[in-house]
Amino acid sequence: MIYSLEDIQFIESMFSRFYDIGATPSGGVTRLGYTKEEDEMHDLLAVIGKEMGLEVLHDSAGNTFVANTGDDEYYLIGSHLDSVVDGGRYDGNAGILAGLLVMHWLKQNDLHVPVRVGAFRCEESSNFGIATLGSSLITGQHKDMDLSRLTARDNTVLGDIFKERGYNLRPEKIRGILGYLELHIEQGRILEEYNQHIGLVTTIAGTRRLNLYIQGKSEHSGTTPMTMRQDALCAAAELVLEIEQIGLAESVRSSVATAAVVNVLPNAINVIPGEVRLQIDTRGVEAASLQEMERRIKEAGKAIARRRGVGFIKEKITDTEPVQLSSVMLDKLDQIVHKLGISNRRMISGAGHDAMRFADICDTALIFIPCRDGVSHNKNEYVSMENICEGAMVLYSYLCEEYKES
Amino acid sequence: MIYSLEDIQFIESMFSRFYDIGATPSGGVTRLGYTKEEDEMHDLLAVIGKEMGLEVLHDSAGNTFVANTGDDEYYLIGSHLDSVVDGGRYDGNAGILAGLLVMHWLKQNDLHVPVRVGAFRCEESSNFGIATLGSSLITGQHKDMDLSRLTARDNTVLGDIFKERGYNLRPEKIRGILGYLELHIEQGRILEEYNQHIGLVTTIAGTRRLNLYIQGKSEHSGTTPMTMRQDALCAAAELVLEIEQIGLAESVRSSVATAAVVNVLPNAINVIPGEVRLQIDTRGVEAASLQEMERRIKEAGKAIARRRGVGFIKEKITDTEPVQLSSVMLDKLDQIVHKLGISNRRMISGAGHDAMRFADICDTALIFIPCRDGVSHNKNEYVSMENICEGAMVLYSYLCEEYKES
Repeated sequence: MIYSLEDIQFIESMFSRFYDIGATPSGGVTRLGYTKEEDEMHDLLAVIGKEMGLEVLHDSAGNTFVANTGDDEYYLIGSHLDSVVDGGRYDGNAGILAGLLVMHWLKQNDLHVPVRVGAFRCEESSNFGIATLGSSLITGQHKDMDLSRLTARDNTVLGDIFKERGYNLRPEKIRGILGYLELHIEQGRILEEYNQHIGLVTTIAGTRRLNLYIQGKSEHSGTTPMTMRQDALCAAAELVLEIEQIGLAESVRSSVATAAVVNVLPNAINVIPGEVRLQIDTRGVEAASLQEMERRIKEAGKAIARRRGVGFIKEKITDTEPVQLSSVMLDKLDQIVHKLGISNRRMISGAGHDAMRFADICDTALIFIPCRDGVSHNKNEYVSMENICEGAMVLYSYLCEEYKES
Repeated sequence: MIYSLEDIQFIESMFSRFYDIGATPSGGVTRLGYTKEEDEMHDLLAVIGKEMGLEVLHDSAGNTFVANTGDDEYYLIGSHLDSVVDGGRYDGNAGILAGLLVMHWLKQNDLHVPVRVGAFRCEESSNFGIATLGSSLITGQHKDMDLSRLTARDNTVLGDIFKERGYNLRPEKIRGILGYLELHIEQGRILEEYNQHIGLVTTIAGTRRLNLYIQGKSEHSGTTPMTMRQDALCAAAELVLEIEQIGLAESVRSSVATAAVVNVLPNAINVIPGEVRLQIDTRGVEAASLQEMERRIKEAGKAIARRRGVGFIKEKITDTEPVQLSSVMLDKLDQIVHKLGISNRRMISGAGHDAMRFADICDTALIFIPCRDGVSHNKNEYVSMENICEGAMVLYSYLCEEYKES
């Protein structure tokens, strides 16, 4: 099959219905998880589902499902409808639009594959500092954590929000998934760089984040000779460059290392920086590479600190393991994109997605479509309607193959 | 002469009277220029002056003078009574205490040298972003600037403050100064490092401050391979280290260069830094060295930007020239400390002081006394009463010599 102009119009018309929700003066959208803007997104999805003659289901974590079946077993096409602050309109939403188009095609072609499109709450960490909340809850993650005290940007408490809405922080685990499929925008520039249309994700990278503290001496910038200084910023600068080298060395294993956050104290024009706090984000699809980067960053920090006579402390903030996606599904998708003649590549996902929550409980696949210049989490995020249609076609073809086999 | 236990007690008792004014919970003091805390300091100085049987004079910039003479010509011992936010109790105040002890000795020994101790308003830039305000006004600086719109930390406007108090932003120029003397704490570690008690300042360094902007690309830290990045922070880190090297190279000319302020955008854990703003403080006693540092910093920034494919902009914030102090006074002071047997060194001042305002209009000298660990602008600032007495002794001896000569 190939998609038609009508299909593009289907996506376009759906996209425009979501367009204004949470719109900000800057031109982006703010649709934070478990806020009224995200509610509006879910409400609209429910309206659209009903208009399409589909069943609409809700679970006790606030997630919304549009289903063509009441069957106990079904394929799940998942994504999310929330955004970061002043974010773009495609991150998450593109996956839901693709899912709706798949449902539309199934209906149009009278194919009885049991499918649900699931919109999971609060995928972005922007509101509660924790990502993939809705999908985590229903797949039984975070069981050892008390999430009820998590606080939103507006200081409301997650426990209160759940109580008020009659949700449950320990919801029943989702069941009956024959396979989980997710389409997401790449949020990177690799597909664009190589002029390819579909990314078949093999692994979702693990993330290891570190706090690094460098303690020098705050002294008067005018009265302290260069040779008598313990400048925390100069030490930090060396470390930032070492971290870049470490990331480059580990990029043979598809890892990355980023010094992303810097806070300098006192950060005053007439004072030598006395303290620098760095936050480092490392990602990798190999646990050994994450381990190696952490080890080398620590070594580098200690060596610099020794040489410069400053203090150095390393602290781990988070540590999530890489998630391997289903190689069986991957091979099938590979054949499908080949058959459809869509340019593609196997690739990793550097970012986390709802898919990683399902990988533990069912066969899970994640495909990427390109976004312009790799820009995401930003009002300038842009994805073409054609790319969304093409991605939907891959999902649809996969389901057709499964249907034929069954 | 040598100072006595009584002299130490004189300083101690004066110091304790000022102690509580503007005291902060952290243990420091906040006595910002042209606020009621600074007023209290000046009021107390006036009370003390009268108690000592001296005349108290005020000028129309709010400066306070304690005089042993109504003569048209006099020596001026100057310093200030304001502080930075949560600052120490010696910066400025030590110079006033030394001046009072000199007045005490003159009276005690019935020496009729015409002397005034001047406390100048708002020496610190902390309240209005501009330093040595009181001394600048009466020495005729800033004539080409409209200072009336300067805003204090609490948003009050300098013009309003002056109007309310009946001060004048274009006051009469101070006259009749036979010589200006200032004692100040070093605010550095050189005297301590070399175990010397008096610093004879030859030059007050000029300051050149730069804004440097580095424009890279904010991208997802997880999805952007190391080789596809334009990381503004990595570029900034290289530049910070280059600036350190430039400072070290120019330290043969007693210059310093400090990357003091860093602001990273967006400074978020999952985003590659897209923009970095650095503020650079360079100081030097040779104008050519300041020029050379600025040139080399600009060159370095451009080269790094070219190599890394990022943008670079350099902007000058301030540019003040080095101030040469009186070599005649310096030679006399040299003889005096030698005669008194006080360990000393000729040195430069990396920080600005009221003295630099007077250097244009009269013979001006500045001496330093040590402060513990070089700590200043901080509650941990500490200066021994003995060091203040010793410094006062140098000033007193200088005046005695002048008296003998006249």
